[in-house]
Amino acid sequence: MTFFPSVGPKDKAAHTYYDEALGLIERADELGYAHVKTIEHYFFRYGGYSPDPVTFLTAAAARTSRIRITTGAVIPAFTHPVKLAGKLAMLDNLSHGRLDVGFGRAFLPDEFEAFGVPIDESRARFAEGLEACRRLWTEEDVIFEGDFHRFGPVTLQPRPFQRPHPPIYVATAMSQDSVEEAGRKGYNLQLVPATSNRERTRELIDAYHAARASGGHQGAGKVQLSYPCYVAEDGAEARRLARSDEERYNERLGEAVQAWGRVASSAYPGYDKILAATKNYDFDTKLGDHKLLAGSPEEVRAQLATIQGWFGDDITVSLTVHSGLLPVEKSRRTVDLFAAEVAPAFTASTR
Amino acid sequence: MTFFPSVGPKDKAAHTYYDEALGLIERADELGYAHVKTIEHYFFRYGGYSPDPVTFLTAAAARTSRIRITTGAVIPAFTHPVKLAGKLAMLDNLSHGRLDVGFGRAFLPDEFEAFGVPIDESRARFAEGLEACRRLWTEEDVIFEGDFHRFGPVTLQPRPFQRPHPPIYVATAMSQDSVEEAGRKGYNLQLVPATSNRERTRELIDAYHAARASGGHQGAGKVQLSYPCYVAEDGAEARRLARSDEERYNERLGEAVQAWGRVASSAYPGYDKILAATKNYDFDTKLGDHKLLAGSPEEVRAQLATIQGWFGDDITVSLTVHSGLLPVEKSRRTVDLFAAEVAPAFTASTR
Repeated sequence: MTFFPSVGPKDKAAHTYYDEALGLIERADELGYAHVKTIEHYFFRYGGYSPDPVTFLTAAAARTSRIRITTGAVIPAFTHPVKLAGKLAMLDNLSHGRLDVGFGRAFLPDEFEAFGVPIDESRARFAEGLEACRRLWTEEDVIFEGDFHRFGPVTLQPRPFQRPHPPIYVATAMSQDSVEEAGRKGYNLQLVPATSNRERTRELIDAYHAARASGGHQGAGKVQLSYPCYVAEDGAEARRLARSDEERYNERLGEAVQAWGRVASSAYPGYDKILAATKNYDFDTKLGDHKLLAGSPEEVRAQLATIQGWFGDDITVSLTVHSGLLPVEKSRRTVDLFAAEVAPAFTASTR
Repeated sequence: MTFFPSVGPKDKAAHTYYDEALGLIERADELGYAHVKTIEHYFFRYGGYSPDPVTFLTAAAARTSRIRITTGAVIPAFTHPVKLAGKLAMLDNLSHGRLDVGFGRAFLPDEFEAFGVPIDESRARFAEGLEACRRLWTEEDVIFEGDFHRFGPVTLQPRPFQRPHPPIYVATAMSQDSVEEAGRKGYNLQLVPATSNRERTRELIDAYHAARASGGHQGAGKVQLSYPCYVAEDGAEARRLARSDEERYNERLGEAVQAWGRVASSAYPGYDKILAATKNYDFDTKLGDHKLLAGSPEEVRAQLATIQGWFGDDITVSLTVHSGLLPVEKSRRTVDLFAAEVAPAFTASTR
């Protein structure tokens, strides 16, 4: 499951959101969910309650014992690699090896501006930061001479719990370069199908697998797809809640991407259209295109079967379940019903 | 209590150290200890298991309900203020307002070199980072124009749980400038008496109170002094354990300050002598000078009474209890005996 808080102080106090989310995570741990994931965003209602995913996930790890702890993603462009590798290694130890690390580039111009980082450098900073973390986790007396950071020889403490290092995921919205790089390097992949169309998502997954094979890596690599999820016994009620939640989420995404109206970056092709896309949001089309899961358990099983048919039965699905905009009881119902009546039909791909 | 891990992988795995420390913290929470604190250091056995105090303290907060959660200290020079203020605000919410934030300058040249920060800038970066956090916590649409960071207008999410912001401490080893600045600004103070002598510590406390009064701030301000602490029914055994622990801690401090043999900085007067001081370490003198607490409950009560006589009965003492070098049972005994047989005589100053 993925937590993407989409509330501000006027909607719900941060401590209330965290308490609700952590309660759901404890329940998910008991129910056998495979992972809990959260994002890194700043300033806006869109994700702003999670400026440091490692902090939230450390609380999640402390209150659970089985579920894997997943960043989706941390942003190397905004944190020095010594700090980032260090706190992730701490979390890997605190969770006794339950950490998966998704790294991302970020895409909100306001965030880059606040950190004083040119958005055009985002890919280079992402790649360099990821590589610096990997080396700090696996090598001693590291001498790092990058374009943005130079240090060493240093030996990171603590060493990660998992050897050689926690599993690495590359998080990307729609970048062909990113998925091919992830494949070549042997990393896993986090995708958000809602940001693209079905054919494009399929192309990205195929490109990833091809790059991974050409890189000579063992196994297929894990592909994790995030879907907002709303389950209720009454499918119509689930869709009503989904519409309410998704329309408000979209409105908040719209606030966060305002800057794409004044920013242009060749590093983000197509992002000039993202603001317009939020204005033309249509829930029924999204639902029809299977960009989210919403309905009765039976309906959601059918939706997932369709998605599995499109993208293969080796994908993993991450359920985005609690934006904070709906009462937590509705999210808890989704968590419970999905575990009891949907997941058993897809164990191999959802665990 | 203060946790200052002083072990490396060959001494004790990081996850074992964290498990032991968190067990002690749960016990301290039950026993009514006032706060749990940890430090920020990198690369060396000296503190290196705590590169991100917020991560460790988030786990501590998740496993406790009453004890206050204290950084001692975070280093603004090594983290962008938006990131630092954001994760501290998350922890303040996750702990439901139990956070106290100590900020420090750091003093190990290797750490500054790894982060690419000139050590001569440490005071300016400390002051600017602290001020940026304070403004991000208390103001909206912050426009910050510092020497090292410029950003805004931005509104930090989440807002802190405590209003206007979590209590702020300034952590300093022996700097007159730092204590006076802390007093003028109305902040609280964290001192480490072991790094100085009795007269100098008294001068720093007096200078702090004078500066605080001249700044027109209400109340005396809190002064928190850290002391290594070893209690056993048999005072001789406590001193034997203390000697073993302190001598090895000092050896590890010696490794971490090697760089002061090649670095000179006018921003750190006297630090050229710190390496020699570790080589001339003498446990008996330290014990005789009350730079640590060690003995039977009765002896430790007497030691604390002496310290209280020197520094006033409004100080708070923070017990440094588990370097990781002694078996955790010995640290647990200290925690238990101190709560049962020492603290009751000093409730006002230790809680």
